[in-house]
Amino acid sequence: MLGLMQQHPLLVSSLLRFVERHNGDVEIVSRRVEGDLHRYTWSDAARRARQLANALDRTHVGNDSRVGTMAWNGYRHLELYYGVSGSGRVLHTINPRLHPEQVAWIVNHAEDEVVCFDTTFLPLVQSIHAKCPTVKLWVALCEEDGLVPNSGIPGLASYEVWIGTQSDHYEWPALDENRASSLCYTSGTTGNPKGALYTHRSTVLHAYATALPDVMCLSTRDTVLPVVPMFHVNAWGLPYSAALSGCKLVFPGPAMDGKSIHDLIEGERVTFAAGVPTIWQMLLTYLQANGLTFSTLARTVIGGSACTPAMIDAFRARYGVEVLHAWGMTETSPLGTLCTLKHKHLSLSPEAQMKVLLKQGRSVFGVDMKVVDEDGRELPWDGTSPGNLLTSGHWVVQGYFKDESAAPFVDEWFTTGDVATIDPDGYLQITDRSKDVIKSGGEWISSIEIESIAMAHPAVAMAACIGVKHPKWDERPIVAVVRKLGANVSREEMLAFYATKSVAKWQVPDDILFVDSIPLGATGKMLKNELREHLRDYRLPST
Amino acid sequence: MLGLMQQHPLLVSSLLRFVERHNGDVEIVSRRVEGDLHRYTWSDAARRARQLANALDRTHVGNDSRVGTMAWNGYRHLELYYGVSGSGRVLHTINPRLHPEQVAWIVNHAEDEVVCFDTTFLPLVQSIHAKCPTVKLWVALCEEDGLVPNSGIPGLASYEVWIGTQSDHYEWPALDENRASSLCYTSGTTGNPKGALYTHRSTVLHAYATALPDVMCLSTRDTVLPVVPMFHVNAWGLPYSAALSGCKLVFPGPAMDGKSIHDLIEGERVTFAAGVPTIWQMLLTYLQANGLTFSTLARTVIGGSACTPAMIDAFRARYGVEVLHAWGMTETSPLGTLCTLKHKHLSLSPEAQMKVLLKQGRSVFGVDMKVVDEDGRELPWDGTSPGNLLTSGHWVVQGYFKDESAAPFVDEWFTTGDVATIDPDGYLQITDRSKDVIKSGGEWISSIEIESIAMAHPAVAMAACIGVKHPKWDERPIVAVVRKLGANVSREEMLAFYATKSVAKWQVPDDILFVDSIPLGATGKMLKNELREHLRDYRLPST
Repeated sequence: MLGLMQQHPLLVSSLLRFVERHNGDVEIVSRRVEGDLHRYTWSDAARRARQLANALDRTHVGNDSRVGTMAWNGYRHLELYYGVSGSGRVLHTINPRLHPEQVAWIVNHAEDEVVCFDTTFLPLVQSIHAKCPTVKLWVALCEEDGLVPNSGIPGLASYEVWIGTQSDHYEWPALDENRASSLCYTSGTTGNPKGALYTHRSTVLHAYATALPDVMCLSTRDTVLPVVPMFHVNAWGLPYSAALSGCKLVFPGPAMDGKSIHDLIEGERVTFAAGVPTIWQMLLTYLQANGLTFSTLARTVIGGSACTPAMIDAFRARYGVEVLHAWGMTETSPLGTLCTLKHKHLSLSPEAQMKVLLKQGRSVFGVDMKVVDEDGRELPWDGTSPGNLLTSGHWVVQGYFKDESAAPFVDEWFTTGDVATIDPDGYLQITDRSKDVIKSGGEWISSIEIESIAMAHPAVAMAACIGVKHPKWDERPIVAVVRKLGANVSREEMLAFYATKSVAKWQVPDDILFVDSIPLGATGKMLKNELREHLRDYRLPST
Repeated sequence: MLGLMQQHPLLVSSLLRFVERHNGDVEIVSRRVEGDLHRYTWSDAARRARQLANALDRTHVGNDSRVGTMAWNGYRHLELYYGVSGSGRVLHTINPRLHPEQVAWIVNHAEDEVVCFDTTFLPLVQSIHAKCPTVKLWVALCEEDGLVPNSGIPGLASYEVWIGTQSDHYEWPALDENRASSLCYTSGTTGNPKGALYTHRSTVLHAYATALPDVMCLSTRDTVLPVVPMFHVNAWGLPYSAALSGCKLVFPGPAMDGKSIHDLIEGERVTFAAGVPTIWQMLLTYLQANGLTFSTLARTVIGGSACTPAMIDAFRARYGVEVLHAWGMTETSPLGTLCTLKHKHLSLSPEAQMKVLLKQGRSVFGVDMKVVDEDGRELPWDGTSPGNLLTSGHWVVQGYFKDESAAPFVDEWFTTGDVATIDPDGYLQITDRSKDVIKSGGEWISSIEIESIAMAHPAVAMAACIGVKHPKWDERPIVAVVRKLGANVSREEMLAFYATKSVAKWQVPDDILFVDSIPLGATGKMLKNELREHLRDYRLPST
């Protein structure tokens, strides 16, 4: 028997309609490519999103057609988020920092019909447009006078001209909530990029969940600064959750340096900021160098990669800013876990709380996780048994765009590729990537844990731990070490250093190799595959 | 084109599964009918809900069958919330304070197959069971030795025996999220009660929304005391939102007096409590009489009827407790609006903030509202134009159980029967019930506003304002006044009193009638229909 409650689809456009109606006068402030600050309100954003929807109709962009963006965080990008998805097209946010060949590959795979780009990325567009036959319109996110003459891009349009002549009356269609709303490609280290195709339903449920007190705790009293790019998993959903919560939004545009971010936080009285450790490190360095503080910032969510204790401590103890450590991925929209304390932790010492806060956190209702062994059997939540991390939920992929079977599953749980432990309170700790973990004598050794011990040695600039084949133990860990300029440390000293650390004897590496450099990818991650290839003729010392 | 995200139904059972997995050790404390405090955890609740589901199977209670409850707020009632809905039956919470004839009518209309009741309500069950032929099993919420011998109820079972012998293994079925999950009848002042039939989807979305920072702001650091009964619109959804948020739950059982509630708040370190003004007044009176305070209570949500400035002020200024004024109804699950400040209000004086907090608040994403005139045209949000309040959203009824067409709609918006204004910031203020508002010369006069002026006169014990027919103005207000014992005030003095108040001249009543009493209903509300009937021969003084 069905119940008798009203049926309304969960739609991206309903978020915009709600914020316009209930918090229409709340500001949106954007630092632009031109360097100035642009100000308007959620009402203005809604009005212009409707103009954009009319422009898409006028340009005969079909239902479900992909509209690509290569843009910084700013108000026009926000209009694209709502105008494209709301009108039944699919917003495809492209990472413009990828290699041009990869950008072209992604545009072609997505079959983008329109691509809108910040003028910063004109050279990129100039280099790829001829290789993108599906794109029938390139739109520069600027006024008409911002268009470069003779750009070489046929029919290049100015966004302001394109939408400016359109009516701001538009009735958002009542779409199926399971329709695709946006598309984001993972920039995997191996193979071609894969597209996560979000739905209206998954986006709205994710917005509800991320705004909760145990997650980002967003209210209409908050001013939100998404430093994490809108081309990285929809800036962790903040353009949606900010509308749901009626927050003031502050966009940093291209200016990610410490001074620009600090000026914006202070000038706009930001209460909540979201970013990755590298950007936050630049911010902290700037603060310290200039003796500055935060006067309004209360919380920051940090994700993308693990956060150091020093960073959490600096935010908490020195600046009074609560740090929310998070884990997620493109395939999880991205909210997987977020770290807030439970009631039982409130009475702990700051040091004991820090131990909890260093973990990646716990699940929120709507998504769940488990760790399993190589046979898919669930492992205990004891905080010490590492296993393959699986996840399942309303905003987790069930396949990739035009490549559905490429997504790995175990019993309908998505395989994240991470190795993690879960403690009895449900706190996740990522210990490794599954392709990097070293399987020795039936036990798993975290390559990250082993290399971070080496990194703690004063003579070590960089260290990478990999597994090499062993006739008896299957694999054994070794560590490639780059010494600091002028520093000296021997193989034996390094191995002795391990003996002083809290690491089991069988986890101590079998060998230390000194190398000149370790190969790094575009985003600064160590390319361990290349290192393994480089060391393919290496043999373990006989013991 | 459909997106590629996982499809999971939004189910009541998924809330229980989540809380067991992630906050299973969090406590649930219940004051029982026996007077003692019962303690267990969410894991225990989940285990026993599974036993209950097996008991329902064993008793051959069919899919979609209604299982009635007449119970205080307590752990067994919580198990029924999850075990009944989770297994695909419909939880029917019955208000045991209604007249026995009405309770029997409701049980028959719902066609309850099983009814579970606290032993407090044994006399009620004894008086109605013979008139309820659909009920094949009556279950007393007690141990076997709590059963009264010779109760006269054939086959009366003890809940503990009924579920105690069952396995605690049970796989919650993957139901359609639009299936009915629970049923609650309105106790309307006219006509037969009408049943709101909630769905799994509406219940889960309501739980997400009510936990948000702009609503009840529930986190796993909260200890929640629902004083509002679980037979009143599911205790405002707290049994669900507390699971979603991993809160500790504290149930007051039948003990609603000031001392019992205060003891519970202090003893269990409650941070959030929900109740109606009458109960909160008893609590405040007890505190004041005994010079007590609250040491942990941070927030309280007050709904059901309007809250006085004195009560809000006492909680805020005297005890440091944030008061969240709310509006809702059985037909809205019940969250319609809740009053929290916006960012723009944070810099206001306490007095100016109080003006905002006295309103019923603003919508949360998922439900919306508007005020319309008699022709259904939307009225402006100016804070001064009263109109019929309409609402629409994921957790608003689209019809009543077995009486679908009885629900009133204007263009698919549910007609609440309230008259209200909405201010430019989207804050609702209820000004009257639509059947009580006085329509005079094309303008609306709030009967509540006019009678509350009379109530402010020192000689007045009670006052009721009603409209009477007028040849020129359509209707004109008059006020029936009950004088305080020994007090004296004349018609002319009362009318002169209005002249000193901020009320437009055309709103001043045309007449004052002194009466001995004003008819009251069971819940203390004035029965204006009876008053109108009583005064049917009354004629306005000629002017």
